[in-house]
Amino acid sequence: MVETRIADIAKFEGQEVIIKGWLYNKRSSGKILFLQIRDGSGFIQGVMVKNEVGEEIFEKAKEITQESSIIVYGTVKREERAPSGFELILKDVELVHLAPTYPIAKKEHGVDFLMDHRHLWLRSPRQVAIMRVRNTIVNATREFFDKNGFTLIDAPILTPSACEGTTNLFETEYFDTKAYLSQSGQLYMEAAAMALGKVYCFGPTFRAEKSKTRRHLIEFWMIEPEMAYVEFEENLQIQEQFVSYIVEKVLEKNLADLKVLDRDISKLENIKAPFPRITYDDAIKLLQEKGEDIKWGDDFGAPHETIIAESFDKPVFVTHYPTEIKAFYMKPHPQRPEVVLAADLIAPEGYGEIIGGSERIADLDLLLKRIEEHNLPKEAYQWYIDLRTYGSVPHSGFGLGLERTVAWICGLDHVRETIPFPRLLNRLYP
Amino acid sequence: MVETRIADIAKFEGQEVIIKGWLYNKRSSGKILFLQIRDGSGFIQGVMVKNEVGEEIFEKAKEITQESSIIVYGTVKREERAPSGFELILKDVELVHLAPTYPIAKKEHGVDFLMDHRHLWLRSPRQVAIMRVRNTIVNATREFFDKNGFTLIDAPILTPSACEGTTNLFETEYFDTKAYLSQSGQLYMEAAAMALGKVYCFGPTFRAEKSKTRRHLIEFWMIEPEMAYVEFEENLQIQEQFVSYIVEKVLEKNLADLKVLDRDISKLENIKAPFPRITYDDAIKLLQEKGEDIKWGDDFGAPHETIIAESFDKPVFVTHYPTEIKAFYMKPHPQRPEVVLAADLIAPEGYGEIIGGSERIADLDLLLKRIEEHNLPKEAYQWYIDLRTYGSVPHSGFGLGLERTVAWICGLDHVRETIPFPRLLNRLYP
Ligand SMILES: [Mg+2]
Ligand SMILES: [Mg+2]
Repeated sequence: MVETRIADIAKFEGQEVIIKGWLYNKRSSGKILFLQIRDGSGFIQGVMVKNEVGEEIFEKAKEITQESSIIVYGTVKREERAPSGFELILKDVELVHLAPTYPIAKKEHGVDFLMDHRHLWLRSPRQVAIMRVRNTIVNATREFFDKNGFTLIDAPILTPSACEGTTNLFETEYFDTKAYLSQSGQLYMEAAAMALGKVYCFGPTFRAEKSKTRRHLIEFWMIEPEMAYVEFEENLQIQEQFVSYIVEKVLEKNLADLKVLDRDISKLENIKAPFPRITYDDAIKLLQEKGEDIKWGDDFGAPHETIIAESFDKPVFVTHYPTEIKAFYMKPHPQRPEVVLAADLIAPEGYGEIIGGSERIADLDLLLKRIEEHNLPKEAYQWYIDLRTYGSVPHSGFGLGLERTVAWICGLDHVRETIPFPRLLNRLYP
Repeated sequence: MVETRIADIAKFEGQEVIIKGWLYNKRSSGKILFLQIRDGSGFIQGVMVKNEVGEEIFEKAKEITQESSIIVYGTVKREERAPSGFELILKDVELVHLAPTYPIAKKEHGVDFLMDHRHLWLRSPRQVAIMRVRNTIVNATREFFDKNGFTLIDAPILTPSACEGTTNLFETEYFDTKAYLSQSGQLYMEAAAMALGKVYCFGPTFRAEKSKTRRHLIEFWMIEPEMAYVEFEENLQIQEQFVSYIVEKVLEKNLADLKVLDRDISKLENIKAPFPRITYDDAIKLLQEKGEDIKWGDDFGAPHETIIAESFDKPVFVTHYPTEIKAFYMKPHPQRPEVVLAADLIAPEGYGEIIGGSERIADLDLLLKRIEEHNLPKEAYQWYIDLRTYGSVPHSGFGLGLERTVAWICGLDHVRETIPFPRLLNRLYP
């Protein structure tokens, strides 16, 4: 008998195998026992027939409780009706460890209860499916940037100053000084792009925000590419190719997981570059036409993003935002300095902004002016200013929020399910 | 003319190309100007002949300073003596931005000066080479675990309690409570392994340690795989395969970078699984024979690790450490409870421990006893205890320190060069 994982079961049709896992669920119809077995790589039904295994083995198997760890021995049989296409005709089952009554039952649990038991909740088919999609998105991201000549440059987490203001920052003592947890690696990526041309970072970022919405996490992961000699237009093209690539890979590798999640696949199949674009000016008009009380110069809230997204069946770029409401480092439009060469990418189906990006200011004098206007501490930014002193070049970049992307692709109501151990307001356990 | 990157130059032999980059260095021999050009993907020599380009272009090119950003136009010519195998016969050069005197000159600079200018220092060939090797190691890591059926599970950075004691932790206010920056994702990986079988995390970890050695960073990245139903011996096999895979990939992709770093390739070519093993008992005897003042029960210091490593030409596993000096969650040897089923992997050439790993305690009662013995707060560990309550299984895992691995593979004296923006005692800038 050969040991295998459920994910590889198709290779062993007709053969006897050993699978090491847990009992996910069981039901009995008198003389037949159906054991739902999971091993982390997948789920499979094991069928035990009393007359074939004998009374002793059958009674032993009947006593095994949900989430007990078990090693099963059986023959792989094709079964078209099974989600995996196979079932196991069980010969024997060995109990590794008997679990007492499992706290997560079939019945509906409240969110707080599930979050308190996140370490166990992760075992459910839905959570496993989300984690597998997340894994594909991360791997596809790395692949995409690797194929396109980018070098991974990890940005520091502990930083001396804030990228965009000092509110919503976690602070910690750093020996004789203070450090802050990074909200973005972007400025560091700009330095790295001047060294390695095309770079990206992919790490955790932190926002000490007291907001409690279905789109916000305190701790979340961001992918932040930065490219020397890349201007506004090319930046958008890379973004739409990147997002299309991610979706393509999930469709290639996670169809079964998307099925577990009841995701409408056709909506994802439609996500192919190029993506539509709308200027901020036109987006404001669109919102006003839809009866929204918004005027030029206002930032969008989540409901506005949803209305804009509803006008398109793909992610949509909103371009050329007012300079006033965007970050200090964004390059103004050469003919219209009141707007910047920035774009946010808004996901379809109400999932909101998943990318923010822009061309950056390359001009030293303008950058110095902006730093002054925004009351930023010049000494802390000296190294960033240096990038415009020694061989400044046009450059652009963007940041994609991993969890919002997972929420969109998986079709989830709340970002709390997109990350293994979510950190929220009042949620630091487990 | 077609725009290309230096890394792809071989495809354009005999053709006219455009390269966008920076002037790394220049020298002149009267009527010939040699421009060292870098674009982040590589370095190439451009040759400009006065008689061919004319006085105006030649004089313009002569005025370009080090680290000025430039766009060059030229023909790709095979040149066996060049490190890249090619040079560019320049037709014209366009100045994008003229740099004032570059602070990092050819002369030797002190470490503090270079660290203060890390954002510029990163542009030097040596630093670029290190970052490229780091990039390969990271990608090879992801590939290895992906190919072997692991799911990436990001561990949280903000945690309510410490994995191994509360000293050396960075603390921050987390709304109405306190959070600590993670030193290890391992305990979370144990929970995830019970859900997904084979998992790993790969993120930043933090140690607020006042030590100033060439092996310590305050912020560093760790790869931490965890595997259900994997016991001590198999854990070691996966580790040696993993480390061999990393080295193989670096040798495949970064030969030119290793040359820049003057790395002795033959030492790396020898790194193939299986790796030698020595028990802690025998390692103590070995050290005593070499005249070291050490006795059974003592932990190894860096000099001890170096002496042990010198007896082998591959990384060496030191196995079965005393239970007393190891973490609370490590499984004791069934016949010798005074030692644990743990192993550290010590890199050759004095680079010290790069992996620590073990089989974990699966037994609920023993875990509870250890938590008590180590005075750990039981409530904070309740979720971790649950893993031994609901379907406990034998499981093992390990943690590899990325920066020490980069230091070893690149042959670096100090870990400060292994990470883009190092965080050290008294070093939080840039
Ligand atoms: Mg925004
Ligand atoms: Mg150790």
